[in-house]
Amino acid sequence: MNINFSKRARAMKPSGTHQLLQMSERPEVISFAGGFPAPELFPVEALKAVCEAVLDEQGPASLQYSTTEGYIPLRTAICDRMKMIGIEASYEHVMITSGSQQAIDLTGKLFIDDGDVIICESPTYLAAINAFKLYNPQFVEVAMDEDGMIMEELEKKLQAHPGAKFIYTIPDFQNPTGRTMNLERRQRMVELANQYDVLILEDNPYGAIRFAGEPLPPIKHFDSEGRVIYLSTFSKIFSPGLRLGWICADEAMIEKYVLLKESSDLHTDSFAQRIAVKYMEMNDLDAHIDRIRAIYRERYTTMVSCIEQFLPHSVSHSTPEGGLFIWLELPESIDSAELLQDCLNNHVAFVSGAAFFPNGGGHNTLRLNFSNMSNENITEGIKRLADVLHSKL
Amino acid sequence: MNINFSKRARAMKPSGTHQLLQMSERPEVISFAGGFPAPELFPVEALKAVCEAVLDEQGPASLQYSTTEGYIPLRTAICDRMKMIGIEASYEHVMITSGSQQAIDLTGKLFIDDGDVIICESPTYLAAINAFKLYNPQFVEVAMDEDGMIMEELEKKLQAHPGAKFIYTIPDFQNPTGRTMNLERRQRMVELANQYDVLILEDNPYGAIRFAGEPLPPIKHFDSEGRVIYLSTFSKIFSPGLRLGWICADEAMIEKYVLLKESSDLHTDSFAQRIAVKYMEMNDLDAHIDRIRAIYRERYTTMVSCIEQFLPHSVSHSTPEGGLFIWLELPESIDSAELLQDCLNNHVAFVSGAAFFPNGGGHNTLRLNFSNMSNENITEGIKRLADVLHSKL
Repeated sequence: MNINFSKRARAMKPSGTHQLLQMSERPEVISFAGGFPAPELFPVEALKAVCEAVLDEQGPASLQYSTTEGYIPLRTAICDRMKMIGIEASYEHVMITSGSQQAIDLTGKLFIDDGDVIICESPTYLAAINAFKLYNPQFVEVAMDEDGMIMEELEKKLQAHPGAKFIYTIPDFQNPTGRTMNLERRQRMVELANQYDVLILEDNPYGAIRFAGEPLPPIKHFDSEGRVIYLSTFSKIFSPGLRLGWICADEAMIEKYVLLKESSDLHTDSFAQRIAVKYMEMNDLDAHIDRIRAIYRERYTTMVSCIEQFLPHSVSHSTPEGGLFIWLELPESIDSAELLQDCLNNHVAFVSGAAFFPNGGGHNTLRLNFSNMSNENITEGIKRLADVLHSKL
Repeated sequence: MNINFSKRARAMKPSGTHQLLQMSERPEVISFAGGFPAPELFPVEALKAVCEAVLDEQGPASLQYSTTEGYIPLRTAICDRMKMIGIEASYEHVMITSGSQQAIDLTGKLFIDDGDVIICESPTYLAAINAFKLYNPQFVEVAMDEDGMIMEELEKKLQAHPGAKFIYTIPDFQNPTGRTMNLERRQRMVELANQYDVLILEDNPYGAIRFAGEPLPPIKHFDSEGRVIYLSTFSKIFSPGLRLGWICADEAMIEKYVLLKESSDLHTDSFAQRIAVKYMEMNDLDAHIDRIRAIYRERYTTMVSCIEQFLPHSVSHSTPEGGLFIWLELPESIDSAELLQDCLNNHVAFVSGAAFFPNGGGHNTLRLNFSNMSNENITEGIKRLADVLHSKL
């Protein structure tokens, strides 16, 4: 039998994420690989009452087909929450997605034709790279420093690629580096986007999980022309399993997103959408987020102090003020993919950094997750990593 | 501002379904347009205990990220259910999807390159047409009669299009016609697929909702070479709002589907998957399906008897033995899209048939849904339709 996959499917390779999610299930491994929130903080008890209330009060409607745009009370609640961080939008500008991964995929589908240029941070989120790749773009990477994407570098790329479709950025506690774009650059990015007539895709899954420093307004806050598409999610502040994300964009774009989503999965789980709304009615989501921030602050602090105590001094690390990840740069002589094999033998895992560079590079970098782990395991895992690293140097 | 959508997005037009779902929400309209299950049959009370049990017994795991393939106990339960209808598969052959709409979209993404031929019944499911269209195939339609796709016609098309990617078919209570493919043709389709080396995409959302006649084995039952991709869903037998569908296919294909799904939405709602499993543990799903079948039998009978009593005799209708839909053929002189405008003024709705023909045609056909309506409303709605039709003839 002859199976003729499409060109896009033939080009796909198993991504790091998928294999690592499986690997992370092996009990003997301390895995810093995933991007899992701390499960012990999930509001399990609260959800019992929430589910009962949804079924009692809304009955069959919570189990029926619903509109592709999403449940209006959820879209309205999202607008209220976005207002708190400086985004003014009404529910017509919001479409619910099945996690923000779907928002990323739909954005690729909506904008990318074969060979189109998209601009991104170097490095950037690997599952976005994989989603976009299916639409066959040319990735143009822009260098970062500790304050995020460098605007002078961005402008050079915009000049070199006048037809670029969008700039993909994760300004808050970026995946994989944990870095945050500073205020000045946020404003400057919007100016550049206006000047070079390009869209911005602002992916903000982690913004609410700030455990140090002062909050910054999202890039969308500075958007005067409707050219910032803003993505976010309940995954890191409530539950990733329920797959609730959203897109906030200009209505002309939302209209197209809705058509694409209709073909993709008709709509996002009606029951999950109503659970999220009812949870916010019956509970204080911000108090819940405060608990998450406190725990992540503690785990981050533990991990950084272990890194500084146990790893070779030739290893440098990022110093995020929130989110889930720390980024390591190893000496040039070390290939983190090879290192990972040795580390797995020593029962510790991470994601090697090369996967986050769409055009290659980053062989001596790696990403560590600290959200999903006790302080004891963080300490033990970093010691295991240190043992392997010291043996290499 | 210049918004450069992709070619595929520029080609999209609002589909009938989306507008009709919105129209169907107007309270004064009796809508036969949707494909909604009867909400009064949703197991609302049972789900209270189910949700509580899932949260009690499985806690945070039910709210955490999970694997892209889906929850193994759900995939295993699906295999048990497929076995009852003659499909032997292990859970490795099954991937959970966010409704079977996602399975359709992923199949387009997995197989269709620009201009590829896909073969389908004429007419066929409009949301599949819209999903496939985004990958820009050439649709080759095969004529049907009351026993489904005509195999002599299929063979001619296979001869004319040797590189066809797959045959898309809904053999049980087809959407939109309600027709069922007979046993002999099911076997013959597999023979032809083997002979012409083409895949079959068997979409079976309605098979369990049989209210007359004898069950037939799915086409997949006759699959000797792993070339039938079988899609089904919990939407019509449990809850469409939870968005739980599945793909059963050869492992080499499932591997690729998993990569595509990972990029599309990472995984299907973990909580919904566990709810489905726990519901089947705590309740008798088949007894529940029997209740659905009994109600739909009654509604179907009411609708057919009203059609025969009130509609002009020049209108012919299909006689399904299950599912949710009846198909009408009107006299050639009537355009059902124009008719719909008049019907909306008379507060009754349906889907005009042209939308189900990917290459045009079918102007004098329409689809009626009978699952989501009391007998009184069915009677009143068909009378309203009859009034408008009589005024046209």
